[in-house]
Amino acid sequence: MSASPAITIDDPADPRLAPYASIRERDLVGRRGRFIVEGEVTLRLMLSPASRFRVESILLSPERLPGLGDLIETMPAPPPVYCASRAVMGAVAGFPMHRGVLAVGLSGAPPEPAGLIPPAPAPATVLGLVGLTNHDNVGGLFRNAAAFGADAVLLDDATCDPLYRKAIRVSAGAALTVPFARTASPQALLDLAARHDLVSLAMTPGTEADIADIALPARALVLLGSEGPGLPPDLMAHCQRIRIGMAAGFDSLNVATAGAIALHHLLRRRCRL
Amino acid sequence: MSASPAITIDDPADPRLAPYASIRERDLVGRRGRFIVEGEVTLRLMLSPASRFRVESILLSPERLPGLGDLIETMPAPPPVYCASRAVMGAVAGFPMHRGVLAVGLSGAPPEPAGLIPPAPAPATVLGLVGLTNHDNVGGLFRNAAAFGADAVLLDDATCDPLYRKAIRVSAGAALTVPFARTASPQALLDLAARHDLVSLAMTPGTEADIADIALPARALVLLGSEGPGLPPDLMAHCQRIRIGMAAGFDSLNVATAGAIALHHLLRRRCRL
Repeated sequence: MSASPAITIDDPADPRLAPYASIRERDLVGRRGRFIVEGEVTLRLMLSPASRFRVESILLSPERLPGLGDLIETMPAPPPVYCASRAVMGAVAGFPMHRGVLAVGLSGAPPEPAGLIPPAPAPATVLGLVGLTNHDNVGGLFRNAAAFGADAVLLDDATCDPLYRKAIRVSAGAALTVPFARTASPQALLDLAARHDLVSLAMTPGTEADIADIALPARALVLLGSEGPGLPPDLMAHCQRIRIGMAAGFDSLNVATAGAIALHHLLRRRCRL
Repeated sequence: MSASPAITIDDPADPRLAPYASIRERDLVGRRGRFIVEGEVTLRLMLSPASRFRVESILLSPERLPGLGDLIETMPAPPPVYCASRAVMGAVAGFPMHRGVLAVGLSGAPPEPAGLIPPAPAPATVLGLVGLTNHDNVGGLFRNAAAFGADAVLLDDATCDPLYRKAIRVSAGAALTVPFARTASPQALLDLAARHDLVSLAMTPGTEADIADIALPARALVLLGSEGPGLPPDLMAHCQRIRIGMAAGFDSLNVATAGAIALHHLLRRRCRL
């Protein structure tokens, strides 16, 4: 058995811990190509082949080292593992680190949106997010995309970053595994769908067609907008508009929940092909 | 037009504002029969006939008074309305009050669980929550219960309070409108279901029966447990176990999302009766 690969650090000001400094404040300004992962489940996912992201470094408290250090040691090219007490971790991060597991990932070059769409005529389910600025909702939608086997998530220019710390956490790590890319505008999403034989479905309470009643296409781009304003009307004018049937007098669902129901129906349709 | 009913208060220590003091700290210890409502949408809901809760008092910033004061004035027996600057509101509450709308509701006597179940042989959809301690999830489940027309929500002894401030907010106010009651234990939930001709459905990934394939009962208690441990096996042994079909290799959904999908299927079934 080889020696533990971990490097013990006692000084919160050690420059190797700089990417972990003032985590919440840095969340707000962004990290230019880096992102923070918290907790064992998400770290294991980022170290697995399911994740396309490179791990720059890992920071563990001594209690977490036995469980995770062994895993990391068996990797062909393991990233540096730093070990610091929870007190030092908390001093660096700026808040208490109860879980004692942090890592820095590298975003890498963003993929081309077109490359994430399965080529026709194969079935395809792509989620399109328009103007979603709430990290919980975006994280929840990635979790649901993974649960119901969406091939990719495409984001318009106004939707927030799925690699934001809280979005990764709410996604249960799915933001690291479900392929995603950004388009220049909501219209660019529609153009891309048209070029790749995807039917654009706009989820909206303001229509008669119920997702549980209509024939769903084998290749679909499911578009979701934010809860208040919804999808822009000029965008919906070029889509098949679909609602989720609700109790009388109620037309309000959380957007991640609406996405889950739409993706569940599309997965059912796909399983019957 | 009558004079404005609002009572202007400039002193954060005014005893009439005591129920609004240190809101976050008081969230943790509970309020013994009182709860806090934030924001205009939720306050309007609490003042409407859809809510069964009495409003003890309302606290508005001066800018919110014209829009809401008029509504309150037309009520037959309006609660006291206090008006304070956002600075005073923030000083009382302990954090900035951007929305400038707060109210104190009275929980009243808890209803009998049995009284919330529609009598047989009418269709009935009741949600049963077991060991759910996350306020976001409980709030989300109330929102979904309202969206998909559940008749009631029954909570076991370990599930958290739907009238907790954050649960009300996440529920979009549905915690004030969907009837709920608490039972002494998970087993008491099952006993109640049996006495009222409800089929107990346990949502769990560990079974073959897919909710989209099976014949659903017209009278159902849908049981949901927390995301990690799920429902207790000895409880599930007395239930019909049902799963939500997911992509291969994935068996994880947020519990509020799982509830939405189950309730959506039950509403569809009920609409076809």
